[in-house]
Amino acid sequence: MLKVAVIGATGAVGQEFVIALNRHKWFELTQVAASERSAGKKYIDAIRDPNSGILRWHNREEVPEYVKNMVVSKVDDIKPENFDLIFTALESDDAKIVEPKFAKTTPVISTAAAFRYEQDVPILIPGINDNHAELLNLQRKNRGWKGFVAPLPNCTTTGMAITLKPILDRFGIEKVFMTSMQALSGAGRSPGVIALDIMDNVIPYIPKEEEKVQVETKKILGAMNNGSIAPAPLKVSCTCTRVPVLDGHTESVFVETEQTADAEEVKKEMLKFSKNVSIKDLPTAPKDYIVVHDDPTRPQPRIDRELNDGMTTVVGRLRKDTAFDNGIKYVLLSHNEKMGSAKGAVLLAELLKDRNIL
Amino acid sequence: MLKVAVIGATGAVGQEFVIALNRHKWFELTQVAASERSAGKKYIDAIRDPNSGILRWHNREEVPEYVKNMVVSKVDDIKPENFDLIFTALESDDAKIVEPKFAKTTPVISTAAAFRYEQDVPILIPGINDNHAELLNLQRKNRGWKGFVAPLPNCTTTGMAITLKPILDRFGIEKVFMTSMQALSGAGRSPGVIALDIMDNVIPYIPKEEEKVQVETKKILGAMNNGSIAPAPLKVSCTCTRVPVLDGHTESVFVETEQTADAEEVKKEMLKFSKNVSIKDLPTAPKDYIVVHDDPTRPQPRIDRELNDGMTTVVGRLRKDTAFDNGIKYVLLSHNEKMGSAKGAVLLAELLKDRNIL
Amino acid sequence: MLKVAVIGATGAVGQEFVIALNRHKWFELTQVAASERSAGKKYIDAIRDPNSGILRWHNREEVPEYVKNMVVSKVDDIKPENFDLIFTALESDDAKIVEPKFAKTTPVISTAAAFRYEQDVPILIPGINDNHAELLNLQRKNRGWKGFVAPLPNCTTTGMAITLKPILDRFGIEKVFMTSMQALSGAGRSPGVIALDIMDNVIPYIPKEEEKVQVETKKILGAMNNGSIAPAPLKVSCTCTRVPVLDGHTESVFVETEQTADAEEVKKEMLKFSKNVSIKDLPTAPKDYIVVHDDPTRPQPRIDRELNDGMTTVVGRLRKDTAFDNGIKYVLLSHNEKMGSAKGAVLLAELLKDRNIL
Amino acid sequence: MLKVAVIGATGAVGQEFVIALNRHKWFELTQVAASERSAGKKYIDAIRDPNSGILRWHNREEVPEYVKNMVVSKVDDIKPENFDLIFTALESDDAKIVEPKFAKTTPVISTAAAFRYEQDVPILIPGINDNHAELLNLQRKNRGWKGFVAPLPNCTTTGMAITLKPILDRFGIEKVFMTSMQALSGAGRSPGVIALDIMDNVIPYIPKEEEKVQVETKKILGAMNNGSIAPAPLKVSCTCTRVPVLDGHTESVFVETEQTADAEEVKKEMLKFSKNVSIKDLPTAPKDYIVVHDDPTRPQPRIDRELNDGMTTVVGRLRKDTAFDNGIKYVLLSHNEKMGSAKGAVLLAELLKDRNIL
Repeated sequence: MLKVAVIGATGAVGQEFVIALNRHKWFELTQVAASERSAGKKYIDAIRDPNSGILRWHNREEVPEYVKNMVVSKVDDIKPENFDLIFTALESDDAKIVEPKFAKTTPVISTAAAFRYEQDVPILIPGINDNHAELLNLQRKNRGWKGFVAPLPNCTTTGMAITLKPILDRFGIEKVFMTSMQALSGAGRSPGVIALDIMDNVIPYIPKEEEKVQVETKKILGAMNNGSIAPAPLKVSCTCTRVPVLDGHTESVFVETEQTADAEEVKKEMLKFSKNVSIKDLPTAPKDYIVVHDDPTRPQPRIDRELNDGMTTVVGRLRKDTAFDNGIKYVLLSHNEKMGSAKGAVLLAELLKDRNIL
Repeated sequence: MLKVAVIGATGAVGQEFVIALNRHKWFELTQVAASERSAGKKYIDAIRDPNSGILRWHNREEVPEYVKNMVVSKVDDIKPENFDLIFTALESDDAKIVEPKFAKTTPVISTAAAFRYEQDVPILIPGINDNHAELLNLQRKNRGWKGFVAPLPNCTTTGMAITLKPILDRFGIEKVFMTSMQALSGAGRSPGVIALDIMDNVIPYIPKEEEKVQVETKKILGAMNNGSIAPAPLKVSCTCTRVPVLDGHTESVFVETEQTADAEEVKKEMLKFSKNVSIKDLPTAPKDYIVVHDDPTRPQPRIDRELNDGMTTVVGRLRKDTAFDNGIKYVLLSHNEKMGSAKGAVLLAELLKDRNIL
Repeated sequence: MLKVAVIGATGAVGQEFVIALNRHKWFELTQVAASERSAGKKYIDAIRDPNSGILRWHNREEVPEYVKNMVVSKVDDIKPENFDLIFTALESDDAKIVEPKFAKTTPVISTAAAFRYEQDVPILIPGINDNHAELLNLQRKNRGWKGFVAPLPNCTTTGMAITLKPILDRFGIEKVFMTSMQALSGAGRSPGVIALDIMDNVIPYIPKEEEKVQVETKKILGAMNNGSIAPAPLKVSCTCTRVPVLDGHTESVFVETEQTADAEEVKKEMLKFSKNVSIKDLPTAPKDYIVVHDDPTRPQPRIDRELNDGMTTVVGRLRKDTAFDNGIKYVLLSHNEKMGSAKGAVLLAELLKDRNIL
Repeated sequence: MLKVAVIGATGAVGQEFVIALNRHKWFELTQVAASERSAGKKYIDAIRDPNSGILRWHNREEVPEYVKNMVVSKVDDIKPENFDLIFTALESDDAKIVEPKFAKTTPVISTAAAFRYEQDVPILIPGINDNHAELLNLQRKNRGWKGFVAPLPNCTTTGMAITLKPILDRFGIEKVFMTSMQALSGAGRSPGVIALDIMDNVIPYIPKEEEKVQVETKKILGAMNNGSIAPAPLKVSCTCTRVPVLDGHTESVFVETEQTADAEEVKKEMLKFSKNVSIKDLPTAPKDYIVVHDDPTRPQPRIDRELNDGMTTVVGRLRKDTAFDNGIKYVLLSHNEKMGSAKGAVLLAELLKDRNIL
């Protein structure tokens, strides 16, 4: 068993880590850390809103017993050398300071954007760009660290990159236009989205989100050459919106392909990719990596998000595009707090351990 | 005062007609008609759900006094020659049968799709393609009718066509990709969208909607040549979704322009177009035809839909596109039950009267 | 294994039966029946909306494999003698006609109100009034039936009766005032509650609901005397409302007790009752029959409704009442589609089999 | 024109003050104050969320022009002697410190609870207990102030006290049991209720709310005797819950009367009271003080809350109670941010000016 810590364990993403690591085969969560406000409290008390008394626990599963009485540490008190791996769920500004300290001795898997755009840092999605993982060894060397920082992509990038990969490999991609309808949990809960702002409403803007998705998609789908990643030569344009949905990001995608591609072929490629995905045997990998619905009313976030505990990317409405000469369009659903966040990070940890990079 | 009837007066769109015609300067609503189930009842009783007793009245304004005690006629009992103009709010199948009968003697303005795609039928948006109105006279001649059928576009087409028009005129348009987030009221209330289906959810499919928007947009923006409309030579691709919003369709639009266009220029064109729009002085015309927000968090349906009583198309997030060489993207909001439906139909009636076509 | 049929199997309650009977230890679902419209179709096709194509399946669990290809029969084609037990999920008017026909040969467990208020018909809640079950044998004799009709209470009655029972037994009850905040699924889906009616809203009226709860509570808590039930001599007053919640009825209850009762004692009684409840060992019985929260922010329907798969009644905010000399008040949550409906009916079937009444 | 200031002008209640004072006949808003964070900014900038950039403006009406460019002062920089009247919209802890300072020179009308329960402080609802206003003069004398502090009741108390008053006067009241279904705006927006906590949910607890309503109702309905208020000798018990509704508190009320009262009589009393209410001619008074619906599906918050711009208390479901020997029950709706808050405070100011107490 590898010993792991979760930093930022009381927030929305941190809570998902606590669930994803419950009775994990390979990883044992031995310490949780959070802000000063929570430090010294039992975990179960630290996740309670001090004013209203409401337990700020979002997951359908109850708080796992194993963590309830763990005492929350201050982030500064964490000794990274005590762990084989550290998961962080921090705001980007904090990550920028804390993660390099940890990485000196210990591998860090991060949900923050802080290091995603640096030269020697891959943005890994297990099964999509596993070969980028070798950059982590270069990172170690470059920076003189025993560990490394391996960030996840933004949760809105994940599902899109996963569905584009089989299209890119088989048909080539020129351009991608994507409009997201993102869930509330993507904004966290401190305070995240206020009910008065979103009920009976759509908010057509999520600060910095579009830029992240545009850049990350190209990096993830890029080629590894001589120790660096050449972004994939496709163009991406996004508009990101918030809708009154608890969990699960829905994305409407229009893709211009290099070669002619009809919907049936694309479906076949997606399913073939799903079937053969590299990470099938890892403990947290879903039974299906991608599911493609023929039913035009799917995917729907409330109905489909929990499929395979949120680790499956669900595609529907796959059809020929009517404006591109060569193109298809579809709708995808990705669970932003599962595959797109903590549980995806645990899957990444499994991959890195499996490949002996951890 | 012109005498008008509203057919389908008890449904969601019919109710909007009843409001839009309340104390109208030019039009007097003298008869309301609906299905057999409602016939013979007072209007106020006909709009009550027979099982639950709930008054199925959706508008923020109360039921206008003038209509409460009007007795609802059967559609078949309507004598079209008694009216100067008939507004219809029918399902397409019914419209196909009823509207030609009325049109023999009387102009019909219709919210149904039944005749939109016929050669001698324009799809009019006041201020956008007024010159297409001359096709109505050809229609009269062709069909030997004293009246005509003038259909509105689908409510999802309206806002997009309005915002594309100034772009097309100034910069030319190659392609349009649009994802809609449509309101519940667009599906009507018989029964429309069931709460159990849409709460905490997005439904990524609205039957037939995308095809309508794709075809109508090109027809509306097309050129009038020798008595027929040549569809505009641009390509349109849509994905239409339903979100948990009461009123107001939000649309995320990506536009490839022929000539380079930056966001500031497009904004200027939109505002100029709005200022000079042909229909400014009609009774139902809004103070602003298009509003463009710099605030990136706008438009929002709950906040912006009632602007100028729902007759303004609200644009925001106007910015350079990142995937087209020449392109811009934006988000628009159009009130599907006001400008996109009954009240837009009344505005059209005003235009046709003003131009002596009625 | 007993052979069972479900009548009304395609509706919301019918779907819950299909789930509750999936891999049941004692009961084998061998036939599903529904209205003429569904008859002859495979189950999976019969639950699809014919217009929108949306699969009208509400449960978080997928449609169980075992039922997908069962062909739906017409209700009239059911031969009751082929079954050991028939579950019905019908509207009251249909139940009134169909259930007596079935009962001639076969026991019927019903979710409809049709027979609840007849003299020789008990309204059974397993664990609460098991002794009323003997009335079923009298019913058989009275009516010359081999079977019987055993109706469940209204779903709003269930949780209240369960929580009142331990209070009544220990402290006596004079009066009960209850306001319900009921979930959408309680209204079914044909069409049930329309989204336009309930979003951002409360509907303060549910036809006939209050009368049902008031009468049923007294009958359920009544004493069995010489082959008839004497309603409990307490007074009940309800106001029933609908709120925008998918599942789970929340009820605010004020109870005047005969003897002084403080919150701590009532909690103790409820927990003792829960621990010793008669039906603990039945297959569908929950681990906890009643749970009492000290956390004042609980119960919450979205968080607590799935506890023990919806079979637990969850109590919170238990405290001394401030207007009664002797009284307490609390909030309860009961899953209207699980314990309050189909799954509660299966629990009742288990009880009747266990007691050899089936 | 009296010069007034609004303290806490950027919050939800403060915004309502800004609207309620727009073009007011008697009062001129000459200064707005808020926390240090907002001080020095223009009002329109101060109400913008610093992170998301979302304009935190909730009202359907746009931000009034007159206030947009007013510079927000620090509360400490307010010189009370510059104003004839100060409205405060502060948290109770701040109110406790600030309001007495202001009251030395200037009358203060407050929405905070800080002083509500003191001996020489009336809790005034215009039209309900106008005679309690004389206590303000005693307060002045007691405390050596030129001004006074006149607090509004809690927004949940207002509608209930208004509807109980005509019942109390005519039939006498023994006991009241009330369950509230309160709107999100009652919790404000800093951050108020988080969307993730309330979507598809009910929260059965609002800290301190029930105690406030129970105590305030009795004080408001109490008798003025020799310079002090004797609480009305009725008993009140409440359970307060939060539901996913934007505005408008719905309350389910059960009332035990001293004398027999049937629903028709109570309705008549309410309407008579409404017709003759003392404050009918004040500028902000609604056309109807109380409206009573016969339609059992009313009141509904989304439909009825804006009636007379939120100043009317709407009653429905008035019927004989089934548990009390003498009693009635009903549902009421009161707009928590209009009559129950800022606009109610302006109405109170008008009353006090009209009675020469201001």
